[in-house]
Amino acid sequence: MATAVQNEPVLIAGRWQASHGTETFQALNPTTLEPLPPQYPVSTWEDCEAALAAAVDAAARLRQLPAARIAQFLDTYADLIDANMAEIAELAHQETALPIEPRLAKVEGPRTSNQLRQAAAAAREGTWAMPTIDTKLNIRSCYEPIGPVIVFGPNNFPLAFGSVSGGDFAAAIAAGNPVIGKANTSHPGTTRKLAELARQAASQTGLPEATVQLIYRTSHADGERLVSDRRTGAVGYTGSRKAGLVLKAAADKVGKPIYLELSSVNPVVMLPGALRERGEKLVDEFMTSVLMGTGQFCTNPGLVLALSGQETETFIDSVRQRMSANEPGVLLSPSVQQSLVAAVDTLVRAGAELLCGGQARQGRCAVENTLLRTSAEAFLRQPEVFQTEAFGNASLVVVADTIDQLADVLRHLEGNLTGCICSAEDGSDDPHYPALASILTQRVGRLLNDKMPTGVAVSPAMNHGGPFPATGHPGFTAVGIPASIHRFAKLTCYDGVRQGRLPWLLQDKNPTGSTWRYIDGKWTTADVDG
Amino acid sequence: MATAVQNEPVLIAGRWQASHGTETFQALNPTTLEPLPPQYPVSTWEDCEAALAAAVDAAARLRQLPAARIAQFLDTYADLIDANMAEIAELAHQETALPIEPRLAKVEGPRTSNQLRQAAAAAREGTWAMPTIDTKLNIRSCYEPIGPVIVFGPNNFPLAFGSVSGGDFAAAIAAGNPVIGKANTSHPGTTRKLAELARQAASQTGLPEATVQLIYRTSHADGERLVSDRRTGAVGYTGSRKAGLVLKAAADKVGKPIYLELSSVNPVVMLPGALRERGEKLVDEFMTSVLMGTGQFCTNPGLVLALSGQETETFIDSVRQRMSANEPGVLLSPSVQQSLVAAVDTLVRAGAELLCGGQARQGRCAVENTLLRTSAEAFLRQPEVFQTEAFGNASLVVVADTIDQLADVLRHLEGNLTGCICSAEDGSDDPHYPALASILTQRVGRLLNDKMPTGVAVSPAMNHGGPFPATGHPGFTAVGIPASIHRFAKLTCYDGVRQGRLPWLLQDKNPTGSTWRYIDGKWTTADVDG
Repeated sequence: MATAVQNEPVLIAGRWQASHGTETFQALNPTTLEPLPPQYPVSTWEDCEAALAAAVDAAARLRQLPAARIAQFLDTYADLIDANMAEIAELAHQETALPIEPRLAKVEGPRTSNQLRQAAAAAREGTWAMPTIDTKLNIRSCYEPIGPVIVFGPNNFPLAFGSVSGGDFAAAIAAGNPVIGKANTSHPGTTRKLAELARQAASQTGLPEATVQLIYRTSHADGERLVSDRRTGAVGYTGSRKAGLVLKAAADKVGKPIYLELSSVNPVVMLPGALRERGEKLVDEFMTSVLMGTGQFCTNPGLVLALSGQETETFIDSVRQRMSANEPGVLLSPSVQQSLVAAVDTLVRAGAELLCGGQARQGRCAVENTLLRTSAEAFLRQPEVFQTEAFGNASLVVVADTIDQLADVLRHLEGNLTGCICSAEDGSDDPHYPALASILTQRVGRLLNDKMPTGVAVSPAMNHGGPFPATGHPGFTAVGIPASIHRFAKLTCYDGVRQGRLPWLLQDKNPTGSTWRYIDGKWTTADVDG
Repeated sequence: MATAVQNEPVLIAGRWQASHGTETFQALNPTTLEPLPPQYPVSTWEDCEAALAAAVDAAARLRQLPAARIAQFLDTYADLIDANMAEIAELAHQETALPIEPRLAKVEGPRTSNQLRQAAAAAREGTWAMPTIDTKLNIRSCYEPIGPVIVFGPNNFPLAFGSVSGGDFAAAIAAGNPVIGKANTSHPGTTRKLAELARQAASQTGLPEATVQLIYRTSHADGERLVSDRRTGAVGYTGSRKAGLVLKAAADKVGKPIYLELSSVNPVVMLPGALRERGEKLVDEFMTSVLMGTGQFCTNPGLVLALSGQETETFIDSVRQRMSANEPGVLLSPSVQQSLVAAVDTLVRAGAELLCGGQARQGRCAVENTLLRTSAEAFLRQPEVFQTEAFGNASLVVVADTIDQLADVLRHLEGNLTGCICSAEDGSDDPHYPALASILTQRVGRLLNDKMPTGVAVSPAMNHGGPFPATGHPGFTAVGIPASIHRFAKLTCYDGVRQGRLPWLLQDKNPTGSTWRYIDGKWTTADVDG
């Protein structure tokens, strides 16, 4: 006789409460392929409606609070994450199969709390809002909160890009907005734990209870309704291209800013001089990058471009040997496994040669490490198909006969997050660099020299973005404070507004003594008339 | 026997050439209601294709030029506009009926050349690109040209917002992009003259010939194809909401940034203390603002909110008397006239009381100065209908019984470019200000105190933007350099890129000695290590 199952609650208006939904789902442990016990509800519109109503209220109350209080919340939340790292990493490991150490507890976890602390510092200082003052005309402007932000987190970074803990969350909160998190359904338990810590931090620092809310899943129709609701301010989405484009269409229709991170094959150009000079080192670097996290990184090097020649053959052969010798890592879910096999199949059917791997492992959530190869000529006949993203531990090498042909391949690339050119230290590749770089730069958000794309530092100078379809708008970054915060803000101008009525950042006196403001065409930390 | 008519040429790839289109249209002189002789072609896709191909080439060549050369072009073009102001103003007057003096020759013309010179200065200095450097990680980023920009200019500012001379044009060029101008079909001759001056300036300063191109009209289908073409970088559109939303849908679908300025009723709250204190002065200011340019401004005060009471009745009656006594100005076109009459009719059918005007003038392109009135209660029953934009010399006064009801009206406003609160100098309205301002600020791009919204200064602190449907994204401004330039740029990050390969703005040495760069969290004009 079955025990009555208690469904997990959703977090709405500061309270863990039963969802209005009756349908449920379970997460899966990818290591064991066994479902995990908790039953998570599929929310109905009633849940969304309640969350939106509470978020509107929270948004109004957040606007009345000093930014320092929001900063305090982010710092407190970061401390709570650090203090609970063992439990968080264990939960995330069960749901994603990502290793507890170093990945979850020593890399992604600290990155997450560090990012929250950077967001806290940015909120406290206010420079992110680009306060701009024209003293002669008494016109002043700055970025302000945009309203409730809906965050859809991806499957591959349960903490650092998580819907209630990651980069979008940190940026949206730093801008002064409440967040409604839509958990990635592959790690609901991890997200639930993080939401609980966020709730606790909000309570400890006196933030509105609905500053952070959490639902786990909705119908597609309710998802579209949520992102296009009048009360929604903006949306952050990281995930599959297909689902992202559906949400984008719904949000675009009603002019809601939606920031998407969709897909990227991250081309790496291996120039012949570099391969001759340091071929084995490049194999090492590439292997680390392409297999890190079982290749499930947005910036995974899925496409390698090289010129035909012995050094390229040596590179390919070394990679193939090492890929074949390496035991494949566990993938995030059977669905990732299926998509990866399907993508490899698409590439093979298009004419790519399968050098190794390509098969799912029996009884494991894994696919053999996969290397494919094709010619530039073939690529140019079907450029779209050959840019199929094989999300996971796989990469396609495109071999061109000439530099011009390689340049032509670059010209046919879709928008990507990153592009890399490895060239010789001795200058022997330099004649080719300018033309290739000038084409590649236009197609990527970040151009790298001589290093692999998988490290995405949380730096003010980072751009984790790029032209469509890598993202929805090439002017924004999802990583890197303060720039990432702009996405969740509206520009507001105060024209002739009386001094005492101006927001703190725009009053004559520098609000912190160290806030950078653009006053009469100069960036300064001085007061107006100071 | 009819003389064979020579159609006006389009400007493609630096040459005035016959359009591939055979269909033509003529502009109309709104003062005489007579068609003007020149026949302008409706371009077919062949024209668009040729313009796009030339623009791609120009974009690549512009990227190789120093920014100072682009600045030189903008300055030269500004000088040519000033030198040809008499002819430009005469042409624009014929096509729009806007007065030669002061409007065209003394106000809009100088604003246009001044704006181009500000764009030149911004391009030369480079601060607009927000060069950001992380010296520790050697990650550097800045904004770069986004690619060919299509600009659709509005009917109401033939020069300052014109497709080849206005704010979008100046911003797109300053960012380093070529522009394909789509003339507003109500002033093709003015736009042609301006394009000729731009072509001349490009030739004098050695810019690619296709830096500025011009077509006059396309089919709707070709317009959608143009904005969504793979080669298009971004789009600037100012015009009707309906046409704008069709272009937005096409551009959004393929992730092309499109910046729109669509419609706005620009609410003005007249608080009772202000009306008691300086009622006649407010009537003067309002009259000037609402009838300026026959009310055909994006920031025209089309909606007045006031509390019921004697001072409001006095205000309304004064405005009504003065509107009735004033001869209405000529409108931009019969189509503007028809839309205005239709909008007034919509408001009246919704229950608004017509206090004066509302009728088209027989045999003239004009509508009587129009004032309407309704109650907040009625407004709240049909908030969407009562926000119908009556583009032209018309305004609707909404009278609320209580401040709470007035606040409720504000809560039901769509996104607007501006919102204004007039309050007493003596502080008697101050108790009401915070609540009203906090609601209004969220619904507008620019909040004004005690001044009318029609002046849009070209200031770094200006925001000519606002939440949907005023524009397509609340984070961008169409007026105000340097911020307006960001719209036509992509963010590009250089990660570990060798020093000699970095763009000029990101090299260690400050490129001009005066460019502001965000280095390791501080804005500075110093060199790296400087």
